[in-house]
Amino acid sequence: MGERLLYEGKAKRVLATGDPDVLLHRYKDEATAFDGRKRGSWRGKGRTNATMSAAMFRYLEEHGVPTHFIEQVDDTTLKTKRLEMLPVEVVVRNVAAGSLAKRLGYEEGTPLRQPVVELYLKNDELGDPLVNRYHLRELGVDDGTLAACEEMGLKVNDTLRPFFEERGITLVDFKIEIGRDTEGNLLLADEISPDTCRFWDRETGERLDKDRFRRDMGGVEEAYAEVLRRVTGEG
Amino acid sequence: MGERLLYEGKAKRVLATGDPDVLLHRYKDEATAFDGRKRGSWRGKGRTNATMSAAMFRYLEEHGVPTHFIEQVDDTTLKTKRLEMLPVEVVVRNVAAGSLAKRLGYEEGTPLRQPVVELYLKNDELGDPLVNRYHLRELGVDDGTLAACEEMGLKVNDTLRPFFEERGITLVDFKIEIGRDTEGNLLLADEISPDTCRFWDRETGERLDKDRFRRDMGGVEEAYAEVLRRVTGEG
Ligand SMILES: Nc1ncnc2c1ncn2[C@@H]1O[C@H](COP(=O)(O)OP(=O)(O)O)[C@@H](O)[C@H]1O
Ligand SMILES: Nc1ncnc2c1ncn2[C@@H]1O[C@H](COP(=O)(O)OP(=O)(O)O)[C@@H](O)[C@H]1O
Ligand SMILES: [Mg+2]
Ligand SMILES: [Mg+2]
Repeated sequence: MGERLLYEGKAKRVLATGDPDVLLHRYKDEATAFDGRKRGSWRGKGRTNATMSAAMFRYLEEHGVPTHFIEQVDDTTLKTKRLEMLPVEVVVRNVAAGSLAKRLGYEEGTPLRQPVVELYLKNDELGDPLVNRYHLRELGVDDGTLAACEEMGLKVNDTLRPFFEERGITLVDFKIEIGRDTEGNLLLADEISPDTCRFWDRETGERLDKDRFRRDMGGVEEAYAEVLRRVTGEG
Repeated sequence: MGERLLYEGKAKRVLATGDPDVLLHRYKDEATAFDGRKRGSWRGKGRTNATMSAAMFRYLEEHGVPTHFIEQVDDTTLKTKRLEMLPVEVVVRNVAAGSLAKRLGYEEGTPLRQPVVELYLKNDELGDPLVNRYHLRELGVDDGTLAACEEMGLKVNDTLRPFFEERGITLVDFKIEIGRDTEGNLLLADEISPDTCRFWDRETGERLDKDRFRRDMGGVEEAYAEVLRRVTGEG
């Protein structure tokens, strides 16, 4: 009742509810990569990512990070606060991989001296370009908001890194999105899942994330399930 | 006497002298673009860029920007202090053009609200990637050095913008390089020329810089000569 599709994203459907301040995020089984040029899907992806995101948001809330999460309403659906999203993706990295390895000429797997924070414009047409604070000022994002984004990224990293460490997983890097509620508070939004993080098994170095899909490594479904198992104890 | 080729760059030859703290920069007639994939040359380019750089360094010194410039020794050669170069290129922009227009999805020619500073890694193999302060920290460039680079970029912009304005030229953007002398001072180095700046005629919008070469617009030699004429009164 009152459910209405607001936005069909690459990984989720965002639905309005009877309450103007509340959304439903319905996680899909579809996966995309390289700006949507690569596509796939597997059964259980939506459930895994929704359940994992719910667990991460709960854990982060308990550790002082305010999030949009309200509750998980079914296997693939989270109820969240509706936010005005910032036009940025905040990436935090502990180990060189992907575009950072390319940018700095590092071998993948090189540990970084300190966490590296990157801000990307969330804009598919522009290919989500890396931006700095001057670009963001030009686009109307003030320095205070930007500093708060970097701080939240680092706080999420400080909180999740040991959490995954204890579960035998190296948190290589991750992407978060942030939005503002009606009172002006910045809250962690979107999702936290193997779609948006790089997880490497601490013992074997095995990749337990979307890189298996991006790079056609096989075992994608199993890797996602394994991460969820280690996070929730669930099978 | 004592001249020895230290480095053959794309636009200059750098020679050692009898004095270990002094270099000669011999400006070449060759031009390259797109990471050296496009090549050309024209008579007088070396002389124009050397003479223009000398004039700009003199003007900037007079306005409080410390530079590596000692003197112009002949048509194509500047004597400079030998510096330990920082691995960055500092770009300052007043109007959207080139890669910034692409990055932000702006039309070329859109004025920017405030000057935009960008830091690029000076590394041909990596394609001179845009970097932020976390990348630079990772590469060993401390925050203080970086802040000084941004400050110098903005000071050069504040000094040169009205200088060119008075001469009927919009300073659209420019790239500088910075190095450290034996006492630890940061000095403006390299060159300032139509190779490293975008100059647009204020009346006609005509491009008076290397974009004429990059984009095969013709009239390159004339454009460089015209800028030099407006800067020095020379023909
Ligand atoms: N709490 C929220 N309020 C409003 N929008 C949100 C919230 N959390 C995430 N979003 C946005 O909803 C969309 C989520 O769907 P997704 O499939 O990930 O989209 P996309 O293809 O744009 O990444 C994203 O555009 C994201 O920015
Ligand atoms: N004062 C200086 N001391 C030492 N090196 C310098 C100084 N000024 C410029 N350089 C360096 O000398 C080279 C100049 O030659 P250039 O043809 O522009 O080279 P490139 O192809 O690397 O851009 C550049 O690598 C530049 O960083
Ligand atoms: Mg998304
Ligand atoms: Mg050069």
